[in-house]
Amino acid sequence: MRNTFGNFITLTLAGESHGGALVAVIDGLPAGLAVDTGYIAKKLALRRPSGQISTSRRETDDFRIVSGLYEGRTCGTPLTFVIPNSDTRSSDYAALAGIPRPSHADYTAHVKYGGFEDPRGGGHFSGRVTAGIVAAGAVAEYALAEKGVKIATHILSAGGVSDRSFGEFPSAGDMDRVAGLSFPVADPDAGEKMKEAIAAAKESGDSVGGILETAVTGLPAGLGEPWFDSCESMIAHAVFSVPAVKGIEFGAGFSAASMKGSEANDPFRYENGRVVTTSNRSGGIAGGITNGMPLIFRCAVKPTPSIALPQQSVDLMRGENTGITVGGRHDPCIVHRAAHAVTASCALALLDLYAGFCATKPAER
Amino acid sequence: MRNTFGNFITLTLAGESHGGALVAVIDGLPAGLAVDTGYIAKKLALRRPSGQISTSRRETDDFRIVSGLYEGRTCGTPLTFVIPNSDTRSSDYAALAGIPRPSHADYTAHVKYGGFEDPRGGGHFSGRVTAGIVAAGAVAEYALAEKGVKIATHILSAGGVSDRSFGEFPSAGDMDRVAGLSFPVADPDAGEKMKEAIAAAKESGDSVGGILETAVTGLPAGLGEPWFDSCESMIAHAVFSVPAVKGIEFGAGFSAASMKGSEANDPFRYENGRVVTTSNRSGGIAGGITNGMPLIFRCAVKPTPSIALPQQSVDLMRGENTGITVGGRHDPCIVHRAAHAVTASCALALLDLYAGFCATKPAER
Amino acid sequence: MRNTFGNFITLTLAGESHGGALVAVIDGLPAGLAVDTGYIAKKLALRRPSGQISTSRRETDDFRIVSGLYEGRTCGTPLTFVIPNSDTRSSDYAALAGIPRPSHADYTAHVKYGGFEDPRGGGHFSGRVTAGIVAAGAVAEYALAEKGVKIATHILSAGGVSDRSFGEFPSAGDMDRVAGLSFPVADPDAGEKMKEAIAAAKESGDSVGGILETAVTGLPAGLGEPWFDSCESMIAHAVFSVPAVKGIEFGAGFSAASMKGSEANDPFRYENGRVVTTSNRSGGIAGGITNGMPLIFRCAVKPTPSIALPQQSVDLMRGENTGITVGGRHDPCIVHRAAHAVTASCALALLDLYAGFCATKPAER
Amino acid sequence: MRNTFGNFITLTLAGESHGGALVAVIDGLPAGLAVDTGYIAKKLALRRPSGQISTSRRETDDFRIVSGLYEGRTCGTPLTFVIPNSDTRSSDYAALAGIPRPSHADYTAHVKYGGFEDPRGGGHFSGRVTAGIVAAGAVAEYALAEKGVKIATHILSAGGVSDRSFGEFPSAGDMDRVAGLSFPVADPDAGEKMKEAIAAAKESGDSVGGILETAVTGLPAGLGEPWFDSCESMIAHAVFSVPAVKGIEFGAGFSAASMKGSEANDPFRYENGRVVTTSNRSGGIAGGITNGMPLIFRCAVKPTPSIALPQQSVDLMRGENTGITVGGRHDPCIVHRAAHAVTASCALALLDLYAGFCATKPAER
Repeated sequence: MRNTFGNFITLTLAGESHGGALVAVIDGLPAGLAVDTGYIAKKLALRRPSGQISTSRRETDDFRIVSGLYEGRTCGTPLTFVIPNSDTRSSDYAALAGIPRPSHADYTAHVKYGGFEDPRGGGHFSGRVTAGIVAAGAVAEYALAEKGVKIATHILSAGGVSDRSFGEFPSAGDMDRVAGLSFPVADPDAGEKMKEAIAAAKESGDSVGGILETAVTGLPAGLGEPWFDSCESMIAHAVFSVPAVKGIEFGAGFSAASMKGSEANDPFRYENGRVVTTSNRSGGIAGGITNGMPLIFRCAVKPTPSIALPQQSVDLMRGENTGITVGGRHDPCIVHRAAHAVTASCALALLDLYAGFCATKPAER
Repeated sequence: MRNTFGNFITLTLAGESHGGALVAVIDGLPAGLAVDTGYIAKKLALRRPSGQISTSRRETDDFRIVSGLYEGRTCGTPLTFVIPNSDTRSSDYAALAGIPRPSHADYTAHVKYGGFEDPRGGGHFSGRVTAGIVAAGAVAEYALAEKGVKIATHILSAGGVSDRSFGEFPSAGDMDRVAGLSFPVADPDAGEKMKEAIAAAKESGDSVGGILETAVTGLPAGLGEPWFDSCESMIAHAVFSVPAVKGIEFGAGFSAASMKGSEANDPFRYENGRVVTTSNRSGGIAGGITNGMPLIFRCAVKPTPSIALPQQSVDLMRGENTGITVGGRHDPCIVHRAAHAVTASCALALLDLYAGFCATKPAER
Repeated sequence: MRNTFGNFITLTLAGESHGGALVAVIDGLPAGLAVDTGYIAKKLALRRPSGQISTSRRETDDFRIVSGLYEGRTCGTPLTFVIPNSDTRSSDYAALAGIPRPSHADYTAHVKYGGFEDPRGGGHFSGRVTAGIVAAGAVAEYALAEKGVKIATHILSAGGVSDRSFGEFPSAGDMDRVAGLSFPVADPDAGEKMKEAIAAAKESGDSVGGILETAVTGLPAGLGEPWFDSCESMIAHAVFSVPAVKGIEFGAGFSAASMKGSEANDPFRYENGRVVTTSNRSGGIAGGITNGMPLIFRCAVKPTPSIALPQQSVDLMRGENTGITVGGRHDPCIVHRAAHAVTASCALALLDLYAGFCATKPAER
Repeated sequence: MRNTFGNFITLTLAGESHGGALVAVIDGLPAGLAVDTGYIAKKLALRRPSGQISTSRRETDDFRIVSGLYEGRTCGTPLTFVIPNSDTRSSDYAALAGIPRPSHADYTAHVKYGGFEDPRGGGHFSGRVTAGIVAAGAVAEYALAEKGVKIATHILSAGGVSDRSFGEFPSAGDMDRVAGLSFPVADPDAGEKMKEAIAAAKESGDSVGGILETAVTGLPAGLGEPWFDSCESMIAHAVFSVPAVKGIEFGAGFSAASMKGSEANDPFRYENGRVVTTSNRSGGIAGGITNGMPLIFRCAVKPTPSIALPQQSVDLMRGENTGITVGGRHDPCIVHRAAHAVTASCALALLDLYAGFCATKPAER
């Protein structure tokens, strides 16, 4: 429902880029869950901009948990993060007033909110708001990790350079390697080339996009609901909330469209007394429900729309065509930063599905 | 929430393939909306199997609207469809008991429901259940049509054969053409070749998948919520509920990942006093909100998992590996039938977003 | 949400008094739950009108469960009841067209639905629709009974005659006695006098109201959420959906308002190693959460508004004042029939709270 | 859903009595709505304790709105209040550890949250949390006032002393008078006597309860949904969230139970071209939907459970019976403070119903 996601464990997200604070309220967490603020701080640090390939806006993300926490554990009531905005420079946006940046939310927000939208820094549409998702997602990841579930996202491609894929059965080594990286790639050389491509785009006043690949291991079979809260539906719902995501595919995804059934089907086998599949085209989901194999998805991140090159726009006040050159502090690529928001979104969707799974166990035989 | 979709106008879906009836309850429709049962019947007919490329199961879909309708119009209360199942042959499934079909929901349903699932004809996971979505979607499509919104889905590719794309600015001609077709293609020749490929797959005991492309025109700017109910989130949520869909992309989608910002951005211009974009890489959505341009998405449909070729599976009762050969009546391709469920799902998501749009108009200035 | 109630286990209710059928969809039930159709039929029979003190409309309530049931048990998917309407005599209502019955929903429905409402037999506002609640409630009661939870409602007063109260600690004998009665009273003599008062009211073209008292035993401590889904909130939400209910109070209720804290507080004691309270002014709920003691509430049922005596009304078509004399088949008292809908509503609310309780167990120590 | 209330305009409430801050997030407000922080501050001041009849804990309620507000108006995104807790003295509660106060939430919270609850100052169950409701309610009241809707609550009785009732048709004078009072009574003399009774109870280490009466004028006919979101259901749901409320009745309420239909029905008449009723036993609601007449309800507030007199309790750590004497700073009566939370809760429920009313206008004829 609008700014709330989830059925059993919900996240409500509030805040604008240059407002007082971002707020994230997680409701439905069981009491007694350990909340590791160091882990959350680390996750927020991974998302933060750094170096030449990022915006020069620097937020310290000094979050406070103002409710729901008692002696280091959840106390059963809503857990609330307040993350103040500090390094705001709203003057950058004054010049844009009434001239929407192409393919940004400026125009659609203006229409939707009748001109009452907060235009400063992209307002509620800013990537800045994903700090709240990453903070809440860190709580979810930590809770899932206690159940043996591990999530990792890497940049499969960016600026025309590709990392090696996780494949159908991702290795624990690759997953662990990328999970700790701010610019998550399995192959460091690919990472360097990506950064060069990003720097080159920035140099020319342009930006690049990319593809993220996420893997989840350790999930039990049985998570997800057939209509309408399948694993794919819930994860896609959460992930499409991350700005700039324009596509998602699970398992073989779009390439399954050109396979035969005999190629796309995953044969079952027993392995150490446990049912497994010998291939994983399904990406760990059949009939919308996890099958216990690694859950794999990829999502497409479009290039940052805020670019320095001159573009065509309109002046909404004067009702006429005009040019626009976007100043301010922007990222020439947000793929690596989006990676952390995608991991967090996935964690929130899965924790919610897990809670639904626990809520409706079948009767004992 | 589970078997209910939507925030303002909701669809609750119930029923199993070989159960008494499918039931679809639409709640939140305004009173006084015309309900055209002929239009609904036509839409159900388009979804029904026919000819050599479909299952031989024949359902007449003699739906009844048992509530919410008075003198041809909605009366403000829930509108309920009851669609009986008649041509059921559950004996086909007896042999499969305990031996899950690869990449079907048999195994995951078994785990999720602890063996209490209805196994007949795929139970709640059957494509049969999409008849309820198509019926409800027809009501939504009709209501949207009254607002000038038009939706069309065609088979962009199937069995390795491609139809011509709608492109960034779909023509009314192409959209109207495919909207009336059971096997929806813009290019009849492409359609014939697809059918040949499907027939060939069937002949060899196999199946094929494909890609669907959907276009929506006539939407106002302003539909969708930034977090978490963006247009992409809501449509993806609905569309991933259609069995066999494994991927979705909006506008340029995955191809945007390899573009520069200067290529991916859609410049604004005034055209007859109205703000338009001169390209449509965004697929009509920016910041999760419609921008008034055609909404475009594509989704990947995997090949039908029920194939006649021998496959590897497990016997869950005996706890051992075994082979499986799936008999019964199955579709060698469900791409064309899924097209109608995708259109319906999209209509339901958009009607819900439209209601949210009307519910929260900004204040007058 | 509108015609859906509950967070974890939901009931969606559809249907009009003279429409094709009533429909009740229960979603979220665990798979493998026994569904006893005989028990449901018995509960529907208790609600049905009978004898001189009821309407002469006779419905057989030949319900069908068309989904969610396989071999006598829930299969994990929505359980749907379809209850056809058969004994409809819509002509009774033709004369009323445009002249709303005082204190009935005719006028408010007319305004709300802009004249598109179904006027036949009170449409969606008819007590007839409670058959769907009673059917669904019977499933909930049965599921709760398996957990040792027992619910009973009796007529505390009607037509000025009082039954003996359950008191703060209801006896199993009184609860069992009334649970099987169509006209539920603990004291048969009081019941006879109530029926006489009802018959007298009918004779004079009038109707009577009453107070229902409900007791629930066997609940564990811990059900309910502080804000906003307390036990009181959820039960009141459900019970106020039963037509004619105008008040509800828990435990000492309104009489607590004139007590001192020292009188209203329930002292704690250990009894056989279990924490109990030695009085039960709280009605089994403290801080919105069950405390393990009997849950007690009472609700006020206003007299049936459809009476034969001449009344003042308006002619909405002509825009002028007019008199009205209500014909048709009506109950001179619905208190006893409402009792079964209140029990059912309470069971649905409690089953939902129970599911929430199971969904979020605190962490192990 | 748990700590969120509402379907269209939702309030999510977080925070504990002695935690970092209370947080209230309102989602779904239209953009451009004026937010008057002075009005909110005034409402919070009315709720605050003062004088001899209240706790000596003094909170300044220096709220901040950290999101959703831009240049004095809502910007279409969630509006978030952060209200810090400052005057906390948690040491008062140390002595109570493991010994639950009778009829307080200590025991039920302990069971529900498995001992992980925040025990300081009643944690999430504290009346302190109603500051968030009052702040959010002030926004709702202000929005409703712009539509001509006025809400007022007074103390109908407390400590055995009665104020004069609003009656079936409350006067604007009485409503305006009480709306501005911290201790809201229509008759100042009655107010003085109530305060004396409260002071006497405090003197004897005891506490008193009371009854609140709320009136709402200016509502259009048509608000509310028949099943399950009737006006009564929604208001009761919200009001039972206010701690200590144990009963609610609408219009004639429990006294309707002993009326005849001919006494309880409200005759219709035209008055200046508008349909009115000449009595208002229904309290402005028929069939769960507003009829345009004043909406009237009363709720029972039990005496504060925290009293100084010695009581019987249990020691949960030692598993044995024990006595308890509650120290700390407590209110000998919370009826007058609850009045402001009840008004706020009612405003939130009505604003939500109003939004639903606007979302689903019937079709034009």
